[in-house]
Amino acid sequence: MPETTSAPCAPEDVRRIACIGAGVIGGGWVAHFLARGYDVTAWDPAADAEDKLRRLVAAAWPALEQIGLAEGATQDRLTIAPTLAEAVADADFVQESAPEKLELKRSLLAELAAATRPGVVIASSTSGYPMTDMQTAAEDAGRLVVGHPFNPPYLIPLVEVVGGEQTDPEAVAWASRFYDVAGKSVITMDRELPGFIANRLQEALWREALHMVANGEASVEDIDASITEGPGLRWAFMGPCLTFALAGGEGGMAHMLDHFGPSLKSPWTRLEAPELDRELRDAMVDGCREAAGDRTYADLVAARDQGVIDVLRATGRLGSTR
Amino acid sequence: MPETTSAPCAPEDVRRIACIGAGVIGGGWVAHFLARGYDVTAWDPAADAEDKLRRLVAAAWPALEQIGLAEGATQDRLTIAPTLAEAVADADFVQESAPEKLELKRSLLAELAAATRPGVVIASSTSGYPMTDMQTAAEDAGRLVVGHPFNPPYLIPLVEVVGGEQTDPEAVAWASRFYDVAGKSVITMDRELPGFIANRLQEALWREALHMVANGEASVEDIDASITEGPGLRWAFMGPCLTFALAGGEGGMAHMLDHFGPSLKSPWTRLEAPELDRELRDAMVDGCREAAGDRTYADLVAARDQGVIDVLRATGRLGSTR
Repeated sequence: MPETTSAPCAPEDVRRIACIGAGVIGGGWVAHFLARGYDVTAWDPAADAEDKLRRLVAAAWPALEQIGLAEGATQDRLTIAPTLAEAVADADFVQESAPEKLELKRSLLAELAAATRPGVVIASSTSGYPMTDMQTAAEDAGRLVVGHPFNPPYLIPLVEVVGGEQTDPEAVAWASRFYDVAGKSVITMDRELPGFIANRLQEALWREALHMVANGEASVEDIDASITEGPGLRWAFMGPCLTFALAGGEGGMAHMLDHFGPSLKSPWTRLEAPELDRELRDAMVDGCREAAGDRTYADLVAARDQGVIDVLRATGRLGSTR
Repeated sequence: MPETTSAPCAPEDVRRIACIGAGVIGGGWVAHFLARGYDVTAWDPAADAEDKLRRLVAAAWPALEQIGLAEGATQDRLTIAPTLAEAVADADFVQESAPEKLELKRSLLAELAAATRPGVVIASSTSGYPMTDMQTAAEDAGRLVVGHPFNPPYLIPLVEVVGGEQTDPEAVAWASRFYDVAGKSVITMDRELPGFIANRLQEALWREALHMVANGEASVEDIDASITEGPGLRWAFMGPCLTFALAGGEGGMAHMLDHFGPSLKSPWTRLEAPELDRELRDAMVDGCREAAGDRTYADLVAARDQGVIDVLRATGRLGSTR
């Protein structure tokens, strides 16, 4: 039974955001919210978290300047809180990005729900757990939602928003509106689905890729090139459905399905995930190391960020009102 | 037992190309080869084929001019042959792009092998049939290879090259080198795999998308947005493997697999293709119609083409030597 949420402010009036967990995803959220002009308070239990976080934000900043900062946006508006309670005390919105462990998420969300002002919406960055399973230990669970971003959250627009059984639908609506105001592209789901939408899609592709590598049918390089030199060039601005509709020529999706429908029965993908044994693991690790060549992690991140910016600009998604 | 092929000219010396079948893919190949400065002779049994083909090439030409035409490239170098035999008579290379029906491909390739000068390599655009199954009726089958493009062939660089059991490995090497010279990005496979590489990957994603639509879990719009606003922005320039390696933070692919490996067992994708019944078919057709809105097929093609060009330019893949 959903509890009723009465958010203390409208999505448009959010000023202070608490980011709980400051790893790759949590830190990416911090960078995004700072760039959009919010005050951000972060908390992370790791001893070296502050140092790492400030480096992540500083590394992201040139990219964010290129996209365009909101008025008043500055890295100086980041505060590191010594405790979880202090981090969320004044927050108008809380983004949780702890490691992907169900028990940890469950107890952390309970702790957050207890420490955060009544009605403030708390979103989890979980990449797969249903909120129904994560909110079981929390009181006031009606304001707990999933707000699942993509890496890096300061550049990739997508956020998937969905509630659990105990979540107040108003909290879902509030979160969706808030993310929209905060410059994200929002998909609001009306039901829980393990992995949500985008991860299920990329996970299907990923499983097939792992099978191919496991069977020696394709190398990591082949797999990456087969996407970046092929379908990936279209998917940056036109999704798989509309892309396949165009493959049907002037007959569109109808022709495509009527013509190629039978090939769905062809043995073109495998079904269950492969055993992730040592051999497969190492093949993937080595293949990626080879693909990276002389480039450091920072080089690759910078290249990825620049690439996304360029693609966003090239496809007309920079400088729009959204 | 592979037959020995002795190509009448080196891949660099190809001047005349025969394109057999002039639909969306065959016509796209015609546009590509014309833009790269080749003489192209096309043949298609449909009554209105010439008219459609010339319109397709004319529609593609502004995009090709923007990318940069090869010296001497002109639409005037397209000839329509009245018969298959006349189309291939002088060809240095043959690209077959007939409809995706095994029996048709089999007899057409036999006919082509009989009509084409000895040693000339004949490539099929098939999107899934193994050459071993298509070359059974042909004499001189050693020069029959798969050269699988992506739509539109005049913009998407990828071509997957693979031979069948009877194919001479030299014909595979010749075709790979030729496509490279002709401006494509080539993946040469050393074994047959139904669907090759990129199609297996996108088919896995596609099956999952169809399941979601069939179950009412996501709309066509959600699915397309989940890619274009999310992973698709990265896949235009960085493949899924390296992308996931970055998700492992500084620990790279090793950390990613060690940390997220167990989630491979999560129910994040489904396995077999869904029944493509009327309801699902119509939901897909309607969803795509809705996504297209007021835009005509030609509008969508123009938008797609412009998008690919912009992405190619944005990611530094225009103006390179390749």
